[in-house]
Amino acid sequence: MSPFSWPVRIYWEDTDAGGVVYYANYLRYLERARTEWLRAQGVDQSRLAAEHGVLFMVLAVNVEYKAPARLDDRLLVTCEAVPDGRTTVIFQQRIYKEGRTEEGSTAGAERELLIEATVRVVCLDGRTMRPRRIAEYLP
Amino acid sequence: MSPFSWPVRIYWEDTDAGGVVYYANYLRYLERARTEWLRAQGVDQSRLAAEHGVLFMVLAVNVEYKAPARLDDRLLVTCEAVPDGRTTVIFQQRIYKEGRTEEGSTAGAERELLIEATVRVVCLDGRTMRPRRIAEYLP
Amino acid sequence: MSPFSWPVRIYWEDTDAGGVVYYANYLRYLERARTEWLRAQGVDQSRLAAEHGVLFMVLAVNVEYKAPARLDDRLLVTCEAVPDGRTTVIFQQRIYKEGRTEEGSTAGAERELLIEATVRVVCLDGRTMRPRRIAEYLP
Amino acid sequence: MSPFSWPVRIYWEDTDAGGVVYYANYLRYLERARTEWLRAQGVDQSRLAAEHGVLFMVLAVNVEYKAPARLDDRLLVTCEAVPDGRTTVIFQQRIYKEGRTEEGSTAGAERELLIEATVRVVCLDGRTMRPRRIAEYLP
Repeated sequence: MSPFSWPVRIYWEDTDAGGVVYYANYLRYLERARTEWLRAQGVDQSRLAAEHGVLFMVLAVNVEYKAPARLDDRLLVTCEAVPDGRTTVIFQQRIYKEGRTEEGSTAGAERELLIEATVRVVCLDGRTMRPRRIAEYLP
Repeated sequence: MSPFSWPVRIYWEDTDAGGVVYYANYLRYLERARTEWLRAQGVDQSRLAAEHGVLFMVLAVNVEYKAPARLDDRLLVTCEAVPDGRTTVIFQQRIYKEGRTEEGSTAGAERELLIEATVRVVCLDGRTMRPRRIAEYLP
Repeated sequence: MSPFSWPVRIYWEDTDAGGVVYYANYLRYLERARTEWLRAQGVDQSRLAAEHGVLFMVLAVNVEYKAPARLDDRLLVTCEAVPDGRTTVIFQQRIYKEGRTEEGSTAGAERELLIEATVRVVCLDGRTMRPRRIAEYLP
Repeated sequence: MSPFSWPVRIYWEDTDAGGVVYYANYLRYLERARTEWLRAQGVDQSRLAAEHGVLFMVLAVNVEYKAPARLDDRLLVTCEAVPDGRTTVIFQQRIYKEGRTEEGSTAGAERELLIEATVRVVCLDGRTMRPRRIAEYLP
């Protein structure tokens, strides 16, 4: 089965004076994909925060930058969750650049791997900052 | 005819510790909608920059904040271009919050006006920073 | 008397692929200067929020972009508060670029005006979003 | 000898609705410290880019988040360069939170370790994206 994936378009706000996407901004796209993966599982983070005071907080990130993205690029961000104990989960994530084709279709176009990332996330009580059992909030 | 509009989803990256979207970030959404309006007209800014050295640069913004957006909100950003002389164009833009409904459908849901903005943009040569006739690049 | 001013250095994070500072980011520098002006008055916003639930929220911004800033530029952001009724205050703000001199001294170097801005801010209760009398929190 | 360090203040722009600094933003502070370390060595990146077409690009980051920063916090970001072959350099970096004291002095106040990071950077030609010998540009 192919992993969950989420499209991201690159705008001026994403780039820097080097002509490419600023290196910290890929972490934003990684988070958008995790959030949409959660939403696809039926998990609404704003409701989790409001009703249970529960947040997901990043403990560690490991990012390898293979090739840069540029203005107007269309990216695809993948997200796979790997169980990692009672209170944490590890996300294996990749960012690809979609090939450009004349009509905007991607048929036959190749994807280029830009980013490979591992993100370790803990589930915690936002008030006490104490870890919570993740299985209660992740189906 | 209804104006061009573009959807925006609010993620953690967009919010601040006040629990709402950080005030500068709405300008990002305004720009995304202008870029997508241009793309819908067949104008590719990365190609304009690479082939003609032409950029659109903001001369002035006027933003009224009516109500704040929050995490997970779905916004709709409109964009209408008003001619304004040989080298500049004025964009009338609005940002609405989509109503939430149980099934994710927006049927019958009301939109709330969050932002009303006017953005004056000049077309210029990125190397000399001299204005260029905008009609050459905008259909 | 010269107005309150606060220095800002431009890093890669601030720029975009046009080679200049992204237009929304100037609003960040305007806010840094307002925050430091408040701090200079003895007002600590994180304490205001924690102890009184009081926030300052922007109602309107008006920004004129005169000239762009670039990587490594040193800017100076000014901030002058003009009373505007019981619950709001208007900030007149400017952003200048400092001249570059050999030894890093600015003696004799000229400042260039980059940005002229007006920002209208309301004082409100963060929970009810109702306006509060600003004189209680601003000395 | 103590490593090079650079102060960073946390503003609204840095935080998210969880009440803490957004996880991608720490990478901005890491870069500010690397840029200031370079500047302290006499290396001006905007001049390097303009005169030699040379950029430093991040190949990999490894970040451990020990504790979060919040609004108004004063951080200290360290930067130590470790040689790593002809074209790359590894930066060992840490982010500390400065203790708060009544008079704003930090005498006797303890520092708390928030972030531990390793950043691998390559020196390259911005046009060809080919690696360049780093010793030519780093003293």
